[in-house]
Amino acid sequence: MVSSPTVRDVAARAGVSRQTVSNVFNAPDRVDPRTMAKVLTAVEALGYRPNRSARSLKTRSAELIGYCVPSRPAGPLMDTFLHALCNAAEAVNRHVLLFTAGDGDMSAYQNLVAQQAVDAFVLSDAVDDDPRHRWLTERKIRYASFGRTWPAHGEQPAPWVDVDGAAAIHDIVTGLVSLGHQRIGFLGWWHGIGAMQDRLRGWRAACAEHRLPHGDPLVVRAIADTMADGRAAARRLLNLADPPTAMVAVSDVLALGVCQELAGRGLVPGKDVAVTGFDDTMLASVVEPGLTSVRQPVERIAEALVRSLVGGDGHHDVRVLLRGEIVSRASAPIPTPTARSVT
Amino acid sequence: MVSSPTVRDVAARAGVSRQTVSNVFNAPDRVDPRTMAKVLTAVEALGYRPNRSARSLKTRSAELIGYCVPSRPAGPLMDTFLHALCNAAEAVNRHVLLFTAGDGDMSAYQNLVAQQAVDAFVLSDAVDDDPRHRWLTERKIRYASFGRTWPAHGEQPAPWVDVDGAAAIHDIVTGLVSLGHQRIGFLGWWHGIGAMQDRLRGWRAACAEHRLPHGDPLVVRAIADTMADGRAAARRLLNLADPPTAMVAVSDVLALGVCQELAGRGLVPGKDVAVTGFDDTMLASVVEPGLTSVRQPVERIAEALVRSLVGGDGHHDVRVLLRGEIVSRASAPIPTPTARSVT
Repeated sequence: MVSSPTVRDVAARAGVSRQTVSNVFNAPDRVDPRTMAKVLTAVEALGYRPNRSARSLKTRSAELIGYCVPSRPAGPLMDTFLHALCNAAEAVNRHVLLFTAGDGDMSAYQNLVAQQAVDAFVLSDAVDDDPRHRWLTERKIRYASFGRTWPAHGEQPAPWVDVDGAAAIHDIVTGLVSLGHQRIGFLGWWHGIGAMQDRLRGWRAACAEHRLPHGDPLVVRAIADTMADGRAAARRLLNLADPPTAMVAVSDVLALGVCQELAGRGLVPGKDVAVTGFDDTMLASVVEPGLTSVRQPVERIAEALVRSLVGGDGHHDVRVLLRGEIVSRASAPIPTPTARSVT
Repeated sequence: MVSSPTVRDVAARAGVSRQTVSNVFNAPDRVDPRTMAKVLTAVEALGYRPNRSARSLKTRSAELIGYCVPSRPAGPLMDTFLHALCNAAEAVNRHVLLFTAGDGDMSAYQNLVAQQAVDAFVLSDAVDDDPRHRWLTERKIRYASFGRTWPAHGEQPAPWVDVDGAAAIHDIVTGLVSLGHQRIGFLGWWHGIGAMQDRLRGWRAACAEHRLPHGDPLVVRAIADTMADGRAAARRLLNLADPPTAMVAVSDVLALGVCQELAGRGLVPGKDVAVTGFDDTMLASVVEPGLTSVRQPVERIAEALVRSLVGGDGHHDVRVLLRGEIVSRASAPIPTPTARSVT
């Protein structure tokens, strides 16, 4: 067996000191680019490996967290969430390994685990009773979830971090009441997934608290999360004998459908009828009037997820419910103290 | 020195055959979940490493491609591009390692290279004479770029893949001419970055070819890529003594500003004035009327980038200029054969 090359070998071949070789790996900012190139050429020629792979073998950690990038259409939060996830991972000397997987296909997860290419997974876009969660749990593979899966039986098995949708919608309704609204509609999705039910609960509770009507006629459901379906749902609310003066939508896309229906009737969002969305996507800020929405604190979500995976044992049982931030714009200029007003 | 555990040790501890252990790593689909859990528990307990780190040490390849996730605000293409990049990498048994870096800060690249945690980088969002390209080239680090950096002096040093903006805008102008337009405006950015100049060249060449006016009054420039600036630029075109009947914008966001200005004047995009954008972002498909735009072939871009890094030596000198796809919508129902019509 040939012995492995050492720092001394690299230094000799590159014609530099051992300290310089060490600096290349440990304090690269101090190294001149040409010297760097010389050392790296020697490293390459000799096959010197001071590297992550060697460290991984020693520490039994890949130092990578796997994240499956959602296929099109991606969630509107994905780009900001990914950036936050990388930042959070880097803060504890980890990186994010990105991969793809077909819907319901766990073989990519399986292969990464078998190769020990990652130490754990972060999941997002959780669905009710998410089969990925069951699969990973059965195999005792470590993971944490952005979002709850609202399991029908018992508790969610692994760490999760989520935004309190009920509380955010409760705050929005309270803000609308402070603007004088007494009749507030709710636009949900037809499929009653957990996140939707959660937000609907917030609407019901807040309306009940303020002694406002919160019966079925004020709740309409869109078939899909599209502007056209949001518009159709808004039409049903506006055609009521006693239509609401404010509409709380479960997503920005539905809320924009509401704005479209208002425009078609010569009504102005925020003046004639208040409209709010959820997620504070790019759409909310580029339309006119701007759309009041709920921003998810992606940085804090990402930090809590990574901490649950990389922190000490005390963190593995994490359930974190974070408060969303109401971003108040012209479609519903909510003045509550929790709202951050933007132009 | 303690000898490393073998497949035999793992099989004995898990109470399964060596074939089963092998299946866990090579044909996981054949393994029952409970058996899988038993084997992985034994692997973990013994510290058995059949893994990527060991293979990396042997093959001298991390099997990872580094990609720096852009900070907010992310380019509108990012989510689809990342998915395509992962797919392309997985097709050649690589994965994408995601990381963050401050603007102009190369230390994250440096550290990944020093640890040999990645084999190469893919860059996106190239700017003119991109300093990242110079930094990586000086250090002989392998990379490929989505986008040209339009170097003022000499050729771009590494493989790049890009969309032919001049050709796409040329096609759009020709399509508008076929719809009867004889006076076509161009909305660019004030900062004359290469990609903008490229698209402007396409507009000028096509207008000249069709003997249409293409002088300065028909070219307006937005300060920033915002709807408000697009609207202001459109105002200047519409206030001309002889205003254009069609407006070609360098981005979807600017084009939506044009649509807003038209709506403010009681004009309908696609009926009274034709409007086109670029990039086919989410915005283009959700607004009404839908916005005609240019879709970048992200899958082919990603494949070409990965091939230039992982393919044989013949691929390292790649310069690939791909054709954008015109997605025709109601804002400018272009009937050219290259256009794919969507509702």
